[in-house]
Order: sequence, then structure tokens, then C-alpha cells
Amino acid sequence: MEHSRQGLLIVLSGPSGVGKGTILHRVIGRRKNLKLSRSYTTRGPRKGETNGTEYWFLTKEEFLKAVERGEMFEYAEYCGNYYGTPRKQVQQELSQGNNIILEIEVQGGEQILKKCPEAIGIFIIPPSVKVLEERLRARGLDSPEAVIERLEASKHEFRYAKMYDYMVINDIMDECASNILKIIDAESMKFKHIGYKIEEVLKNA
Amino acid sequence: MEHSRQGLLIVLSGPSGVGKGTILHRVIGRRKNLKLSRSYTTRGPRKGETNGTEYWFLTKEEFLKAVERGEMFEYAEYCGNYYGTPRKQVQQELSQGNNIILEIEVQGGEQILKKCPEAIGIFIIPPSVKVLEERLRARGLDSPEAVIERLEASKHEFRYAKMYDYMVINDIMDECASNILKIIDAESMKFKHIGYKIEEVLKNA
Repeated sequence: MEHSRQGLLIVLSGPSGVGKGTILHRVIGRRKNLKLSRSYTTRGPRKGETNGTEYWFLTKEEFLKAVERGEMFEYAEYCGNYYGTPRKQVQQELSQGNNIILEIEVQGGEQILKKCPEAIGIFIIPPSVKVLEERLRARGLDSPEAVIERLEASKHEFRYAKMYDYMVINDIMDECASNILKIIDAESMKFKHIGYKIEEVLKNA
Repeated sequence: MEHSRQGLLIVLSGPSGVGKGTILHRVIGRRKNLKLSRSYTTRGPRKGETNGTEYWFLTKEEFLKAVERGEMFEYAEYCGNYYGTPRKQVQQELSQGNNIILEIEVQGGEQILKKCPEAIGIFIIPPSVKVLEERLRARGLDSPEAVIERLEASKHEFRYAKMYDYMVINDIMDECASNILKIIDAESMKFKHIGYKIEEVLKNA
């Protein structure tokens, strides 16, 4: 018997440069009912990024029209660009019983967690600020001055952690990914999600 | 820096015959800060059971004196015998930051979950009532009539599941044990338990 349970909405966030995207790549594909929500953004694609893979790349005008039409689940401005989650894909996946992960900066994450009390918030932190600084530099996306600026912004972003249910330290990437999978697996075993199975077991005498 | 956080109190329960004890043996020893609470009981030791390993075996008089002195965290009568959890060991382990598991019948579990809202309840169910019946028979502890009686009691015990946070199906034992470990690991990553680490990371600039 197919049970039409809702999927889990998982909000994955953390300070800029902590490695959310890389971790996500190591998580997605490891559970068959785990789907990735692709965000809209008005920032230009980075080297290697293609439309519909990491993001849907929109012009500012297109983005703001989507907002106006009420199509966005959440959106936020970050470093002069808009980022947002279109509502439709999220709702479809959830209603099909799939779990969906939103990888999202801290402000957008906060909006979702406030709107959806049933969402599961996972906040990633680096093992130290020093490591975060090294990662921001190694990424090579920003000038040395921009790295300092981002680092200060990141430190501020740590304060959002308390909005989240779980905190995972991204020291060794594979461990961090496997910890996130443990959280998702554990959440899937909550009585509120699988309690209906009791009736099946009792019927199946 | 040693942080003096409280350990997790984990209540492991499920209907009679579901295999709580066997599962527990596959869980304990797999995490270094995970300790087992040993209960008091007035039932006689089963073949192979020794005092202080599975239970502390007490006379009814000794048990009721412990209750009178307020030493019991919870206790319940089950099939004519008393079972209970002494408070002292639980409190010591928790205050030392160790996680402690109580393997407990459904009534005792209910008492603990009501008294301790921070306790984590895990309820084990069999894949089917048929399998439960087979396990009760295979155990060879009860007469065929007593098996029927136990099975009816077990079916009633399923109703306690909704008091628990998580539900795990004991189909393949190793999978069930590993799911319980996932739950414990995930709970250990809750922000409320490890949020203090943020200050350490920020200090460690």
C-alpha cells in the first residue's frame, strides 16, 4: 500500500564560504527520495556553472516579476544579488513524498524556518574561523579585500545558527555529508512521519 | 576545553518479544559515551542471566523498600513482577555528559517520557504481528497458551508508540541497531546540545 505522506523539507545553511554547495553534492544522490531544490539567482554564473544545474540564472527584472507573481517561497538580497526559492518545485516534491533540500544563505533559511515550523534546519559551521578564511581565499572568487569583507559577514552569519535544529561541523567533508544523511534518516524515523505503519503491522497479523 | 554538557537520556521500548534486549546488545559499545542503565527486577534470572549484567535481581521486599526510599526513577508491575530504574546511576551518567539508554517496557517508558520531556523516546516494532508471534515461540520461555496471552498484551502495547519520538522497525537486527545509532548521533547534533561550540569556533579566529 502506497502511503501518501508528505516529504521532509530540509533547510541547509551556514556562513558564506563554509562549503554548503560542496557538501550538498556529497549528500544528493545518496538517498533515492532526496531531491534538490534549485534556486533562482540574479548573480552571474561562476566558472563551470550552467543554468538549471546549480541555479536558474535570471535577470533582475525576471526575478522581481516572479516575486510579484507570488511564485517565490522565499527570497533575499545578498551582496547585491537576489537569491530565491521558487515555490512550485518544493511543493510538488513534498506532496509526492520526496524529501527536498534547500541549500540557502542564512537570511533565506531564516524566512523558511519561520514560515514552515515543520522544516528541518541544518546549520553548517567550519571547524574554526581560520579554516573559513583559508577556504574563502582558496576559492579564488574574491580579491583579498573582498575576502576580509566576506569573513566579517560570515562571522555575523554564525548568529543565525540558533534558529536551526541541528548544527554540523564541516571539518572532514565526507564526515559532514554523512552526518547530514544521519540527520535526514533519523528525521524520517520520527513517529509523526511513520506512525501510520503501526496499523499496517497490526493488520498484517 | 571540556564542556560540562548533560548527556542524552534515551528510552528504548517496544512491545513484549520485539527484541529490545538483543538490539540493545548490538547498540551498546558502538559509541564510547553511550551507557546502559541496569534495571531492578523481582523476576527470577533467565538462563544465562547474571546479577548486574542484564538486571539487578531483587526480592519483592528489597524492591519495595527501594521504592519507599525514593530511589526509583520509575517502576512498574508487569506479568506479576516488578521492574524499575534506579535513579542514581542515570543521574550520574547524565551529569558526566554520557548518554544513557534505558531499555524498558512500555509502561515504565511512558512514566519516564512524561517526567522528562527532554528524554528521547525510541519505540521498536516488529515487521508484522506474525513475526512477533514466531519470535515469542522461538524464545521458548513461555507455554503455547502463555505465548497467545503475551501476543495479545503485545498488540495492546503497540498503542504506546505515539508517546515516543521515533519508531524503528526490527526486521533485520543489524539495520535496526544501526538506525538506533543514527537517531542517537543525530540527536547529539541538535543545536541545543552543541550550540556552545559556536563560541569556541569564533574565539579560535
